[in-house]
Amino acid sequence: MPVVRFATAERASQLKFFLEDAINFDTLSVIFNKSSRFARLQNIQCSIAGKNLYIRFTCSTGDAMGMNMVSKGVQNVLDFLQNDFPDMDVIGISGNFCSDKKPAAVNWIEGRGKSVVCEAVITEDIVKKVLKTTVHGLFELNMLKNLTGSTIAGSLGGFNAHAANIVSAVFIATGQDPAQNIESSHCITMMEPVNNGKDLHISVTMPSIEVGTVGGTQLASQSACLNLLGVKGASHESPASNARLLASVVAGSVLAGELSLMSAIAAGQLVKSHMKYNRSNRDMAAIASSV
Amino acid sequence: MPVVRFATAERASQLKFFLEDAINFDTLSVIFNKSSRFARLQNIQCSIAGKNLYIRFTCSTGDAMGMNMVSKGVQNVLDFLQNDFPDMDVIGISGNFCSDKKPAAVNWIEGRGKSVVCEAVITEDIVKKVLKTTVHGLFELNMLKNLTGSTIAGSLGGFNAHAANIVSAVFIATGQDPAQNIESSHCITMMEPVNNGKDLHISVTMPSIEVGTVGGTQLASQSACLNLLGVKGASHESPASNARLLASVVAGSVLAGELSLMSAIAAGQLVKSHMKYNRSNRDMAAIASSV
Amino acid sequence: MPVVRFATAERASQLKFFLEDAINFDTLSVIFNKSSRFARLQNIQCSIAGKNLYIRFTCSTGDAMGMNMVSKGVQNVLDFLQNDFPDMDVIGISGNFCSDKKPAAVNWIEGRGKSVVCEAVITEDIVKKVLKTTVHGLFELNMLKNLTGSTIAGSLGGFNAHAANIVSAVFIATGQDPAQNIESSHCITMMEPVNNGKDLHISVTMPSIEVGTVGGTQLASQSACLNLLGVKGASHESPASNARLLASVVAGSVLAGELSLMSAIAAGQLVKSHMKYNRSNRDMAAIASSV
Amino acid sequence: MPVVRFATAERASQLKFFLEDAINFDTLSVIFNKSSRFARLQNIQCSIAGKNLYIRFTCSTGDAMGMNMVSKGVQNVLDFLQNDFPDMDVIGISGNFCSDKKPAAVNWIEGRGKSVVCEAVITEDIVKKVLKTTVHGLFELNMLKNLTGSTIAGSLGGFNAHAANIVSAVFIATGQDPAQNIESSHCITMMEPVNNGKDLHISVTMPSIEVGTVGGTQLASQSACLNLLGVKGASHESPASNARLLASVVAGSVLAGELSLMSAIAAGQLVKSHMKYNRSNRDMAAIASSV
Repeated sequence: MPVVRFATAERASQLKFFLEDAINFDTLSVIFNKSSRFARLQNIQCSIAGKNLYIRFTCSTGDAMGMNMVSKGVQNVLDFLQNDFPDMDVIGISGNFCSDKKPAAVNWIEGRGKSVVCEAVITEDIVKKVLKTTVHGLFELNMLKNLTGSTIAGSLGGFNAHAANIVSAVFIATGQDPAQNIESSHCITMMEPVNNGKDLHISVTMPSIEVGTVGGTQLASQSACLNLLGVKGASHESPASNARLLASVVAGSVLAGELSLMSAIAAGQLVKSHMKYNRSNRDMAAIASSV
Repeated sequence: MPVVRFATAERASQLKFFLEDAINFDTLSVIFNKSSRFARLQNIQCSIAGKNLYIRFTCSTGDAMGMNMVSKGVQNVLDFLQNDFPDMDVIGISGNFCSDKKPAAVNWIEGRGKSVVCEAVITEDIVKKVLKTTVHGLFELNMLKNLTGSTIAGSLGGFNAHAANIVSAVFIATGQDPAQNIESSHCITMMEPVNNGKDLHISVTMPSIEVGTVGGTQLASQSACLNLLGVKGASHESPASNARLLASVVAGSVLAGELSLMSAIAAGQLVKSHMKYNRSNRDMAAIASSV
Repeated sequence: MPVVRFATAERASQLKFFLEDAINFDTLSVIFNKSSRFARLQNIQCSIAGKNLYIRFTCSTGDAMGMNMVSKGVQNVLDFLQNDFPDMDVIGISGNFCSDKKPAAVNWIEGRGKSVVCEAVITEDIVKKVLKTTVHGLFELNMLKNLTGSTIAGSLGGFNAHAANIVSAVFIATGQDPAQNIESSHCITMMEPVNNGKDLHISVTMPSIEVGTVGGTQLASQSACLNLLGVKGASHESPASNARLLASVVAGSVLAGELSLMSAIAAGQLVKSHMKYNRSNRDMAAIASSV
Repeated sequence: MPVVRFATAERASQLKFFLEDAINFDTLSVIFNKSSRFARLQNIQCSIAGKNLYIRFTCSTGDAMGMNMVSKGVQNVLDFLQNDFPDMDVIGISGNFCSDKKPAAVNWIEGRGKSVVCEAVITEDIVKKVLKTTVHGLFELNMLKNLTGSTIAGSLGGFNAHAANIVSAVFIATGQDPAQNIESSHCITMMEPVNNGKDLHISVTMPSIEVGTVGGTQLASQSACLNLLGVKGASHESPASNARLLASVVAGSVLAGELSLMSAIAAGQLVKSHMKYNRSNRDMAAIASSV
């Protein structure tokens, strides 16, 4: 997402008003969308720092993660703008207002890629017998660790136990960009008692999961994994539905991972399970079931 | 790093004073260090939220990343404290004040793992002939993109062009935990003209690179890569020097990656090079040289 | 801005889609705007955390700061929604997604109140003779202090030298809410050489200045001050123009204050001038001219 | 707190090691403390951005807020360092790593001024009869508004309902610097059920309250207010105890304010009470009792 510079803040604000004016949206869409038959411009947001203007484009990209078609669409728009704003100095096609592969509030608040909320109710019975802990214990741990602890640490988007572990694993297995786990791991985990305090409602809210099922790596095992999940390639009936489903798989896996680790901590078993399932252990089956 | 709870904030603050009092450091060290012959406690920092206390231990861990020995050392200290603070309620051995695998200001400001600064001077000649841009162009782009752009986006530790790409690549290649690229990618890239504006001083400051050269995965290709870098295993002459060297390799690679991508953007070549070296391209040699 | 809760995240997301759907905007506007003849709903933004929904209303409020008419409009909408969403549990009419009187990225990125950019070009001559420093010195100090220094400190919206001093002073003098100086002081100060490096371009970008010229305190000196600035009361020709002008006065004053303090620091005079113009000094004229 | 620059990051890191080496602390203390008979250096913390070094001094300042004695002490140290580090280029005596009058994680995590935790237990009876709400209602509202809501908004240190209102009021009444309410209002409010869920434990944790009882304004009403609180001037028996007490008064008032507003919201009375006690109301008694 580009940063452009003018001689004055006044000129920068004129471009901001132009880009954000609903009247110009159709024209800009046609120009942007030429980059690919899947690219569909949805929104343009601008932010000013003096005489410099930062532009953030939002668009749908079908089942692709879409970085390339977006970059090309942005270039199309910049070329077009040069006619009406010949004094616009393009400092860089990427100005960090995106923000790609960096922790940034703009992704946390506005979203980027797919925004997913995943929820489940875990009955008291399962919490006690399978997870070896209590609804109230999980609820308190979540409030004191994932909400309060991260708050004390000055976190940005890291209000969870270990979303990044699961996101990284799924990303590597399915051929996503492992460096995009940074914003893709933004997650707030909520645990609340429901049904008169008997059962547990758990949810993970993840505003910026960045995945695609076309393009990217063509390696055999990653392709096999996408096939296994039933999301490989572009969906012909419903474009973008494969990518959306993959994002749901990520969130669902994170929910399971949160439930598992939080229960282990609540049950005071973290250190011991780490010792037992050390990553250097030869027993791969054991590793596979480790948190 | 644990979160413990008391009946009152007064009691929580008493434990805080106890843990931070220099008089108690030797005793606590002995207890903590029992977890491993490499673990050496360096500092204890506490933060309060009402009657809940968050404790952050800093220690050296030799050439290991050290997560397990630290967890064990923490448990040792908690067991010991239970004598003098029997009313201490351990809510969880991990309270998110660490902060592991999450973007958090505490890592950005206090550091975590290895803190590395890497610098280089690039002469005017190289900037022009090899990087196809100018010292002044790079300087301005860095100020407007990596400093100002990330600031506008509300970033935390993401004051760089694409540190995460390089960190992720080196982490996967050398068997590090790919989910720890989140805090390990925290980086501020500075570019300043030196020698009367003729040459470019570039630096990357990375406060929390988390790497180890012992423990972790034993897979063949990752081991080979550590060997190739001359950092595999524990250093016998100088414990921890292998891990430190690996952290320097990460930072040095990031510096090279920053210089490369920033030059490409400054030269207006980003979109084109992305098109050319698309990740699905079969020509692996081309991919290898791609940003 | 309210937080409401449902039994499931699915229901929370249904309300989110309803509120953000363009089809419903007219209906919601009519209901919201009943709160005052000046209130005009502009936008509704929702954010989810599991089964809890945070709603942020944006509206114009004429020349008033508008807190009360907004609260009333929000209540109107909540009452209306209770028909279609009877299972909606209003946890609180203020859910901190506003965010009022707290540092929050949402204000920094989305804006709140008035968003103002103020700029000036200071000629080389003035910089040397009046400010006793150089264009290049100011430029470097701004990059290393206001951009890089605040970045290192993990700041949010505090990319300036002392905007809060000026905002607080004008707020108290004109009867604004002094606790709203928190988000109103969010400011990025940019200084860049222009005209071939001879002159200085300075700007302050302030996204969330919260001021009003009607309502609020009726104290004599504050009223006199608003009169003196020519912005007292509601503008009849052009509603909201008085409040907008007052916001511009704030930003203009901040620009002057930034220029003054930054020049003093660049000239190495900060400590001395602080000593000289100590606040306990009886010479009020001296105080008035102090930074 | 100064920012200094060297030709290389290597030199910057040498000064960092020098300043943080325990061996040099006594020497540096003597030099720093010459600025005032109350100034007592406690700690020096450095942060690097390439070849630029940001230095943060922590010291006790008796009953004064101490800005001037600190600035002078810093200048003393810089003058001294110039001998051993003649290549040190002092860019500015204030480099924004302090961070004064700006929201910054460094203050939230490290503290600045006085760090205070204030707590109270409110019995079920009072919650019901006086506050017109329930322990469980307050507990839930606090979790969803002050913890989760502020988290969703990307807040930094603003995990409370309206701490800034109370901090601003006390600051203005007692002659503190009203622009320092920004970091002084950093506060996390916790509410937890105790005594088997019957009663409410409420606490406010405020890491950076900046107050003084000597120096500053000499205006009559502010002096009277300090006298009324019994904290005016320097404490002779126990230096700094007046300032500490004033910080406690601030925190205690914030706790009361949080309890009041949170109860009003929980009881659904916010809008109505705002309408009733509008600030333009002539009945000052009503205003005084308004939240």
